[in-house]
Amino acid sequence: MKKFVNDPENFVAEMMEGVHLANPGMFNYEPKYNLISRADRPSPDHVSIVQGSGSGHEPAHIMAVGPGMLDAASPGGVFSAPPMDYCLECIKAMNSLKGVLVLINNYQGDRMNWDMAIEMAEAEGIDVKQFVIDDDVAVQDSSYTTGRRGVAGNFFVMKACGAAAEKGASLDELLELAAKVNGQVRSMGVALTSCTPPAKGTPIFDIGDDEIEVGVGIHGEPGRRRDKLVEADRILDEMYDAVAGDLPFESGDRVALMINGLGGTPISELYVLYRQAALRCKDTGLEIVRSYVGEYCTSLEMAGASLTLLRLDDELEELLAAPADCAVRVF
Amino acid sequence: MKKFVNDPENFVAEMMEGVHLANPGMFNYEPKYNLISRADRPSPDHVSIVQGSGSGHEPAHIMAVGPGMLDAASPGGVFSAPPMDYCLECIKAMNSLKGVLVLINNYQGDRMNWDMAIEMAEAEGIDVKQFVIDDDVAVQDSSYTTGRRGVAGNFFVMKACGAAAEKGASLDELLELAAKVNGQVRSMGVALTSCTPPAKGTPIFDIGDDEIEVGVGIHGEPGRRRDKLVEADRILDEMYDAVAGDLPFESGDRVALMINGLGGTPISELYVLYRQAALRCKDTGLEIVRSYVGEYCTSLEMAGASLTLLRLDDELEELLAAPADCAVRVF
Repeated sequence: MKKFVNDPENFVAEMMEGVHLANPGMFNYEPKYNLISRADRPSPDHVSIVQGSGSGHEPAHIMAVGPGMLDAASPGGVFSAPPMDYCLECIKAMNSLKGVLVLINNYQGDRMNWDMAIEMAEAEGIDVKQFVIDDDVAVQDSSYTTGRRGVAGNFFVMKACGAAAEKGASLDELLELAAKVNGQVRSMGVALTSCTPPAKGTPIFDIGDDEIEVGVGIHGEPGRRRDKLVEADRILDEMYDAVAGDLPFESGDRVALMINGLGGTPISELYVLYRQAALRCKDTGLEIVRSYVGEYCTSLEMAGASLTLLRLDDELEELLAAPADCAVRVF
Repeated sequence: MKKFVNDPENFVAEMMEGVHLANPGMFNYEPKYNLISRADRPSPDHVSIVQGSGSGHEPAHIMAVGPGMLDAASPGGVFSAPPMDYCLECIKAMNSLKGVLVLINNYQGDRMNWDMAIEMAEAEGIDVKQFVIDDDVAVQDSSYTTGRRGVAGNFFVMKACGAAAEKGASLDELLELAAKVNGQVRSMGVALTSCTPPAKGTPIFDIGDDEIEVGVGIHGEPGRRRDKLVEADRILDEMYDAVAGDLPFESGDRVALMINGLGGTPISELYVLYRQAALRCKDTGLEIVRSYVGEYCTSLEMAGASLTLLRLDDELEELLAAPADCAVRVF
């Protein structure tokens, strides 16, 4: 295992402490519950939006907390659902007069713990609702999921709901918006390499030097098939056909296009993939209105990438263009 | 070689085409010279700032072109200096009444080609000056360099000069500013793994499963020594002592702190390193005013990181805080 790590048991805590230190005044950090939250939330005038998943997917989700995005995140260990008490404390810390929206990627472990926490929060009189994201078209059921998995498309749910919440949308309006985005977003990923959780110390799966996992999950779940590595455009073509063909996206659609790196793939390669995705959009009559190339939802140092398409309308275009900030920025 | 690549000979061109397609209206792209430039430059009221280096360091430099940053970049192949005619065409394309500033990282190949191009541009009556960046404290001379190498500290030279150029600074003022930033910025990096240029197909150096290259160059140049991998805080400590001790930075200094990923290291690990860097700054009395955690100057998919410190004053703080945009963004 070649990583920048001290005691592997402290990996998540030290990463979170780093995020807190790098953004003075922006976040509150409660180490006991792995809880990063906006220092200016909860607010009586805004629904709070929270998400907790396993760690190892950074920037999702602790680095997606900020104005116009999430209000708090409370991750579990690497690739491990947040314990129920983390979820409950996250909800309680962000309790607002306008309610709390919990976004969950569709994994059984996350759902179970958030379900329990939501039930307990409701018993304490908190107005809290959940929405489950399942944008991954690769497979129907998976190692840790009944139904489709939630992957990088969650960025668009967070961004749209975060922008609407800033404008004062109600909890019911945000639930409707989350359902709308999730209904119009589709993703699929491929892995060239495996990755190694620090506390495990060994790769989560084996893959040959000439192999690619097509439709991989963000915890290394098997995809549609294992195949020989081929050239970038052919890999992209398969992702594009799977994603665009699923909704299906249709000629004339305005779309947001995301090429998401899984952690170990440099941005140069992501732009090689973006190029072919843009050419395919043009060929099939999709108008790219917004482009996202970089790391949004990762699997530690896994080399790989995913493609996400979101069908846009005027409302979503405006919400995606709204200002936002989080721990991940360039300048 | 496990990469998203088509014909390796087309890797750089396809990446650049991707950058161009992803940012409609923002850039002009001249494939013949690997030239990406701001669509709204040159301007008679602004000095143009250009840089070309080898590719493989993305986002440096083609993805650092944009308002408040570079006006154009014309990279060579992966880890290969831009040919003289690329440099010359870049200068000519950005020729402005106020002049052209060429930023160069200190590598002999880049310097030679830019020197020739600048001489030819001057013969054509263009007002062009160059500044050479050499922020890497690791070694004095190196495989491709006499004197110190230029690495991730170049971001701060680009950002400060880009912001000043937007405000109308003259060519002489920008030269002075570049010298000021370069005089106050220091960096050092470490590598955990090697990397593989697509057209080469094999790693640029070998490194054992338990080894680290301390003070590595961004083309895999040897650093200070090869050592056994130790825990993250100890690695950071050595980088910090080398960087902070070089200027030297002194208690009471205001600084910008950058933890730069070399391409294959996930952002979670970069924040583990940031944490220790912030604690060291606190212990030694450096006040962190601005933080940068992410990828700024990379070596393809190399796992590794560098630490950069920049001593700030009011002028530099204002320039770093000025608005900017480029191909790399989150939202």
